Amino acid sequence: MATETEQIDIDARAFRKCLGQFATGVTVITTEVDGDRYGVTANSFASVSIDPPLVLWSIGRNSRSFDAFTKTDNYAIHILASDQIDVSQRFSSSVADKFEGLEVTTGAAGSPILTGALGVIECVLDQKIDAGDHVILVGRVVRLEQAGGEPLVFAQGRYGLAVDHPGLKPTPAQGERISDPAGSTPLFRMLFNAFHGMSDMFDEYRRAEGISTVELRVLVGVTDQPGMTIRELIERMHLTPRETRDSVADLTERGQIIQRADGTLHITPLGASKRKVMQDHVEMFEKKILNGIGNQDMAAARRVLAHVAGASTR
Amino acid sequence: MATETEQIDIDARAFRKCLGQFATGVTVITTEVDGDRYGVTANSFASVSIDPPLVLWSIGRNSRSFDAFTKTDNYAIHILASDQIDVSQRFSSSVADKFEGLEVTTGAAGSPILTGALGVIECVLDQKIDAGDHVILVGRVVRLEQAGGEPLVFAQGRYGLAVDHPGLKPTPAQGERISDPAGSTPLFRMLFNAFHGMSDMFDEYRRAEGISTVELRVLVGVTDQPGMTIRELIERMHLTPRETRDSVADLTERGQIIQRADGTLHITPLGASKRKVMQDHVEMFEKKILNGIGNQDMAAARRVLAHVAGASTR
Repeated sequence: MATETEQIDIDARAFRKCLGQFATGVTVITTEVDGDRYGVTANSFASVSIDPPLVLWSIGRNSRSFDAFTKTDNYAIHILASDQIDVSQRFSSSVADKFEGLEVTTGAAGSPILTGALGVIECVLDQKIDAGDHVILVGRVVRLEQAGGEPLVFAQGRYGLAVDHPGLKPTPAQGERISDPAGSTPLFRMLFNAFHGMSDMFDEYRRAEGISTVELRVLVGVTDQPGMTIRELIERMHLTPRETRDSVADLTERGQIIQRADGTLHITPLGASKRKVMQDHVEMFEKKILNGIGNQDMAAARRVLAHVAGASTR
Repeated sequence: MATETEQIDIDARAFRKCLGQFATGVTVITTEVDGDRYGVTANSFASVSIDPPLVLWSIGRNSRSFDAFTKTDNYAIHILASDQIDVSQRFSSSVADKFEGLEVTTGAAGSPILTGALGVIECVLDQKIDAGDHVILVGRVVRLEQAGGEPLVFAQGRYGLAVDHPGLKPTPAQGERISDPAGSTPLFRMLFNAFHGMSDMFDEYRRAEGISTVELRVLVGVTDQPGMTIRELIERMHLTPRETRDSVADLTERGQIIQRADGTLHITPLGASKRKVMQDHVEMFEKKILNGIGNQDMAAARRVLAHVAGASTR
């Protein structure tokens, strides 16, 4: 049976979309070889063994840093915090000096260490494993750093934050308080339910329209600012190269955008109408949700929300 | 230099805490060997290669399913959706029949396929790599399934959801609308800011108190329902075994809880006072945030939030 199924062709774009269903953190991995510093953004990081402490990640054979990372015997894995999208973008770009202007120290094994990460895992190489178009690098951990903060998350093609799961079981005795100390205030819980409910409702509509979040963001970007290149779109919309290229390819195939010979992206009449349908729906959707709420209540709610957001940012 | 740093001892608990800074999705991986079905919850999943399509995960040598997964030549990786915490808990528990009552079909390579996952990646074994106390299993993808929905996230020791990152760059021309189509309605953005602001504020206080989210949840659980075993605590508080055991060990070392000879957990006077400090602070914190808001505004805000949450759940 296995031999039969091995023949099946897996479409690369469909495969990447399916992989994107698995949420990950974002890491930047750095090394120094012959006096030159290298760094790449990777989300293929995974824990392996506790004793001895081993972790892994994979590097693509077509990465410009492939030779450096398959030659070095040490590297530092930086787990990015939620405020480090710019670091993630920089190390996944093709800028000449990715380290320019960053504060960098030298780790115990000699790797360049960036500041501001949520965690740093410094490794010496344990083993290298050939695996298709990538090489798996297993590292033995020699030093750890940990900081407070929340992780940057990458899921379904875009950056996000992790928030506590709302479905925690309360004990009968204590109600919500026991299950979620941070959310023990009813206001907090109400905010979560309202926010998440609206978000879910929009997502359901978007899926029914057969458009992914990244595709929608590309469509919006290209409509509102025609003539961007893919690189500009990635930068402007905070997207990642791989997912953006796949989305541009999908939207092009569906006739919703076109890429001219000079590399610039433009909306087609079909794409513009798709975009308008989505936008009209967002407006209808807000109207529908707010239907039955008086103007005075709405104004009061806005005052309270602004106050809470303001109080918490100090 | 590398040889010197290799001598450094990495504390297992500190290492796991640092690994927890990297957010992951949650998978359940299943196989059938000699007519028996096996399944484990794993977050060590990572993508490897696109062409050929390869993915990996690692299984611990002390896992009760270790023999099955190192013997089988095929397995199915289920990427769990946000509403599948119960599936994650079930496959990380030691119940006799993890598949009991679940709808299961048979995949192309013969693995048991569960329903309801966000993605299914069916694999045939490509290579097995010894790596410390785990074995890395690299699989070649033979079949994919993908469904709509949002991913279950695991970060910093607890389950969560991924929400869109608020820090997306708007274009100067379009303001917020371009950067976040789903959040283009001001109400949605206000909800997000208020919710996230409150959450951040509490987290900052919690960190300053030197207690992790999981530790706090353990402390609350043991206070409100003394006499639970670790297993009951995991089940009740929706925690995972590894992080809960580490947190119980940490809190025990700090003298905040004790585990009796019969395995039950109890709060100490020191732990009870820590818990009270945290709870008092949550109340103060809500009062402080809401200070200056009139009762009428507050009542109106609650009406609007309840209405929005209700409208979105239909």
